[in-house]
Order: sequence, then C-alpha cells, then structure tokens
Amino acid sequence: MKTNFRIVALVWALAFTTAMAFAADPLPAWNDGPAKQSIIAFVAKVTTPGSPDFVPVAERIATFDNDGTLWCEQPIPVQLYFALDRVKALAPSHPEWKTNEPFASLLKGDLQTALAGGDHALVELVMATHTGMTTVEFEKIVKDWIATANHPKTGKHFTAMAYQPMLEVLAYLRANGFKNFIVSGGGIEFMRPWTEQVYGIPPEQVVGSSVKTKFEMRNGQPVIVRLAEFNFNDDKDGKPVAINQHIGRRPIAAFGNSRGDQEMLEYAQGGSGARFELLVLHDDAAREYAYGPAQGLPDVKLGAFTQAVYDEAQKAGWTVVSMKDDWKQVFPPEKK
Amino acid sequence: MKTNFRIVALVWALAFTTAMAFAADPLPAWNDGPAKQSIIAFVAKVTTPGSPDFVPVAERIATFDNDGTLWCEQPIPVQLYFALDRVKALAPSHPEWKTNEPFASLLKGDLQTALAGGDHALVELVMATHTGMTTVEFEKIVKDWIATANHPKTGKHFTAMAYQPMLEVLAYLRANGFKNFIVSGGGIEFMRPWTEQVYGIPPEQVVGSSVKTKFEMRNGQPVIVRLAEFNFNDDKDGKPVAINQHIGRRPIAAFGNSRGDQEMLEYAQGGSGARFELLVLHDDAAREYAYGPAQGLPDVKLGAFTQAVYDEAQKAGWTVVSMKDDWKQVFPPEKK
Repeated sequence: MKTNFRIVALVWALAFTTAMAFAADPLPAWNDGPAKQSIIAFVAKVTTPGSPDFVPVAERIATFDNDGTLWCEQPIPVQLYFALDRVKALAPSHPEWKTNEPFASLLKGDLQTALAGGDHALVELVMATHTGMTTVEFEKIVKDWIATANHPKTGKHFTAMAYQPMLEVLAYLRANGFKNFIVSGGGIEFMRPWTEQVYGIPPEQVVGSSVKTKFEMRNGQPVIVRLAEFNFNDDKDGKPVAINQHIGRRPIAAFGNSRGDQEMLEYAQGGSGARFELLVLHDDAAREYAYGPAQGLPDVKLGAFTQAVYDEAQKAGWTVVSMKDDWKQVFPPEKK
Repeated sequence: MKTNFRIVALVWALAFTTAMAFAADPLPAWNDGPAKQSIIAFVAKVTTPGSPDFVPVAERIATFDNDGTLWCEQPIPVQLYFALDRVKALAPSHPEWKTNEPFASLLKGDLQTALAGGDHALVELVMATHTGMTTVEFEKIVKDWIATANHPKTGKHFTAMAYQPMLEVLAYLRANGFKNFIVSGGGIEFMRPWTEQVYGIPPEQVVGSSVKTKFEMRNGQPVIVRLAEFNFNDDKDGKPVAINQHIGRRPIAAFGNSRGDQEMLEYAQGGSGARFELLVLHDDAAREYAYGPAQGLPDVKLGAFTQAVYDEAQKAGWTVVSMKDDWKQVFPPEKK
C-alpha cells in the first residue's frame, strides 16, 4: 500500500511538473530530444527557488556568438557582403581601386583572388569601408544596407536568416530572467543597429570587434569618429577577455559554433555552480549549409570550424545541436 | 461659466499631477530649489507619454562619474588609499621597495614625495598593486579591503561616504525606467565588486579605466589574468569613447564634477531631444570639502577641477549643484 501511494504521488508530481513546464512549449522549433531537453533542464534548475543550482536573476548572464550561431554565415559572413557593397558604392571616388588589391579583384567580382591576401587584405577592406565617418553616420549606412541587402542564395534579407530555434532560446532565457549578450568576432557597430529588432538584444548588450574611435567637435557638435586603426579582435581568447571587460561577470550559459567560440565556452564552464554550453553543428546542407565539424571534411577545409572543437564538446559534455536532427525549422516563417 | 469650468479642471489636473509626482518626495535629501526642480522636471518630461520630450525606456541611459560625483574623493581618491594599503601589505615580499620610488616614500608615509613623480609614479604604483593576479583574486582583494578600510577624517567606511542625494537620484531614475551607468576614470575592476550593493549598479553597467588582461588555463581552470600594461584611460575625451564602446547609445543624462567629465557632459548634451547635464560643486568645507570650481582658488590649485568647466556649465545651461545650498544632507544616516 505504502509503495502504491508513493507511485501515485510520483505520477501526480511528474504529471504536474510536466504540465507546468510545457503549458506552452517554449521551444516549438526544436525537435524533442537531448538537445532541447538539456536547455529546458538547465533553465528549470537555475530558476527554481530552493534548488541547489538556483542562480539569482542578476547572475543569469548568457553569451551568444553571432555568425553561425544566431544567423547564417554562409557562403561568406554577412559583414563581408556589407564591405563588398561599400566598395562598389565608394569606388567612383577611389579611382586607384581599379588597380590596387584587394579592391581591383573585388570590383571584378573575384572574391577568391581579393581575399587571397589573407588577414592583411581583410583588414584593408574593413578600414576602407568601415572607417573615416562618425558613429552616427556609420549607423545609418548599416541600417540602410541591412534593410535592403539580400542573401545570394535565398534572396531573403539577412536578418530573416536568423535561426528560429535560437530566437526561441533567446526569448525563453529572457522570460526566465536572463540577460543575453552577443559576443561576436563581427564588428560591434555593424551589429548594434539591428540586434535589438532582430534578437531583442539592446546595443549595450552587444560585444564585438572594434576599430579605435576619437571624440571630436565638428561644427560645434560633439561626435565620435571611427579611425582606420584596429582596436580589439573579439575572437578566440579575446572573447573571455571582452566578456570580462564589458560584462564583468562570468556567463553561466554560452552558445557558439566554431573554433572562435571555444575559449568562451570553456570560460563559461569554468565557473562554479550550474553551467550550460552549446555548440551548433552545421550539418544541414538541404535547409542551410554543411560545413562545421563532424562533417567528414579535413580540418584544412573546415578552417575555423575544426574537428577539435567538436571533440572537446563531446569530452566536456557540451550540448551539441545537430541542425538537421534537432531543429524542426531553421528560419522564421516568411512575413506576409 | 465655460472659463470657470476650465479653471476648475485645470486646478484639479494640477492637483492630481502634483499629488502623483510628489506622493512621496523622490529626493528628500535635496533642498527645494532650481537644482532639485530641474531633475524632477527632466524626469517628468521624458517619462510622460504623449509629451513632445517623451523618451522610450530603452533609450533612458544615464551616465555618472564616480569620484566626487557619487562618493567622496578627498583628501585623495579612494583607489589611491587602496593602492597605499596594498603597498604596505606587499612590502615584505618586495625588499627593493625600501629604496625604490615611489614605494620608499610611500612606506615612510610621505605621499607628497611619492607622487611628485607624477603620472609615471602613479602608473608604477597601480601596476605594482593592481596586476599580476587573476580577476577573481583581485575581486576578493578589493572586497576584503573595502569592507574594512576607513576614511582618515570621518573614520567611516568609504562606501558610507556615497552622497545621499545622489543615491536618491540613482533610485529615482531607476524607478523611472532609466539604466544608470558609472563612467569613471577609476579602475573598472576596482569598482565592480561593490557598486551593485552601494549604488544598485551591476558590474555590466560599470565603465572605467583598465589594464590589459589575458585568458589563460591555470591547472586546467580557465582564468583571466591582469597584466601590468595599461589598456584604457577613461577620462576626459576617453569618456565618450568608452560610452560608445560599452553602451553604444548616447546618454540622455550625464552627471559629473570635474574637468574629467566635461566631454561626457558635452556628448550627452549634443544628442537630439530632451537632455540633462549636472555638475556637482564641492563648496561645502563644513560637511565635506571645498575644492571645486568657483571657490576663488587659482586654476593651478584647482587642478582637475578647473574654473573653465564651471564657466561652460553656466554657458551651456547645465544644472550646477551647490553641495552647501542644494543638499539637505550629504552622507547617508549612520547604520545602527
């Protein structure tokens, strides 16, 4: 009898808990499975008062890589399309670009040759297209571009290629008292003009790479000017450094997809108490792209998306998300 | 009759509005006068829906200098007391300090001679006392110190010498949807361990000067190490630069007390829409110190607190607060 009562009580308790947690599914674009379950279990344990893993609201900090974690970064990162379009727009006032690399190749549409110069070519491209104006002017340039530019394959706006399952994770965490931060290798001021609208993440919660800037009076107006000098590379071991500088707390949850996110995930995991780390695996050539680790490609082909990150994820117990298997839907439904 | 009705309605409306706004005086430590009125008028106009000056909650960003604006910075800034105590604590393992300046003079209690070396001496002092440990270790050192160290004149804890009227402004703004940030020349990681408790300002809303840091694995644990290399000087024209970098929005209200805050106040004022700038004038030798502008001292004696800032405040219409006349109370009541 005693046992029966226990079982009945247990069944009731389970039924009740399940009813509460899934009253409305917070992650409808996720297929049921270990990845989805691990997110929900983590949120439940850090937000349940009295739980040994309870974390006060102020300490519920989550950090997200952007490119390839929150939105599509293929066939090339979105910010590179922005730079290319800026080169075309600025070309008439730069006749020297007809012969100087990387600009000459870019203007001929030959991205491969243009970027053969590696980091040097990339830095030159960014400085020529992202600096020399005030922050207010740059913000307007980005806003105008992001409102009109389209992805070459899908024809969608880039912001329409944010991942629906990750938008749900952002909203779910926010509803549970988390403060979400972007910590991206991309340009901080390239992201801020649209992250609030797309991700619900305000400018002060965006951390990224940056150029140096300068305060200046222009015609009696105080402005901040973007200088053609690199300031900070928010990638790899730069991510925990930037997290410490901007946020001043160790995140309890971190989300990434590549070698550039490895130290951020390690840093999050290294704190005490309950922790959550997630790696998005790009294994869905049909609905997005297949290019990440565990795709049977040699490391040299994977580039930043090395097998080693995947191996560490397995060993360290990070949640690995298969886009193909774990995501019911990849992009948000089309707006009518 | 029509006119009478209008008057009656107006009187009712005024009475109602006044009753709402002053149901409880949000700034009881302030004497009634133009300074207090200017704060309340600003908050009312940016928070009243339908007002031409209405500002959405997300854009209600206020930035505060710390030393001399939120807490007492005399006879020397608090962080310098911290550095001096660190020198004493570390001296046994640095026998060379007995002869090397600025340490030798400091250990003899001769601050004047020690700091005669100017910025160079100061940087050496900061590097020797603030770096070489992990961020977690440094946080503990600061927490332990701030919990026990006392002001040489009042004998109070330094955190008990935050200004009561400014604590009220912080709370008043917060209650009206503002996000308050500290933007201080002081060290960002010297402030973060206690700003939440003292000011209600969490670490991610603290901006300050910094040293470079490095991500590292120590015994398999990911840590961030503080390096003996200067990173950023968050003073003067560095303040708007840091505001742009950390916050990514122009503040609509800014509070300072010295030459170091001038560009921050100019930057806040330079935006469109309703703006508020406030300068705390230290003219109260009896209850605090008299050392700021408009004290009839020559500029050379004023140092960072030049007459020119005061003159700009007058010309630009910034609210100038006389501690003597505008503050009913300077420090919070003693805790029993």
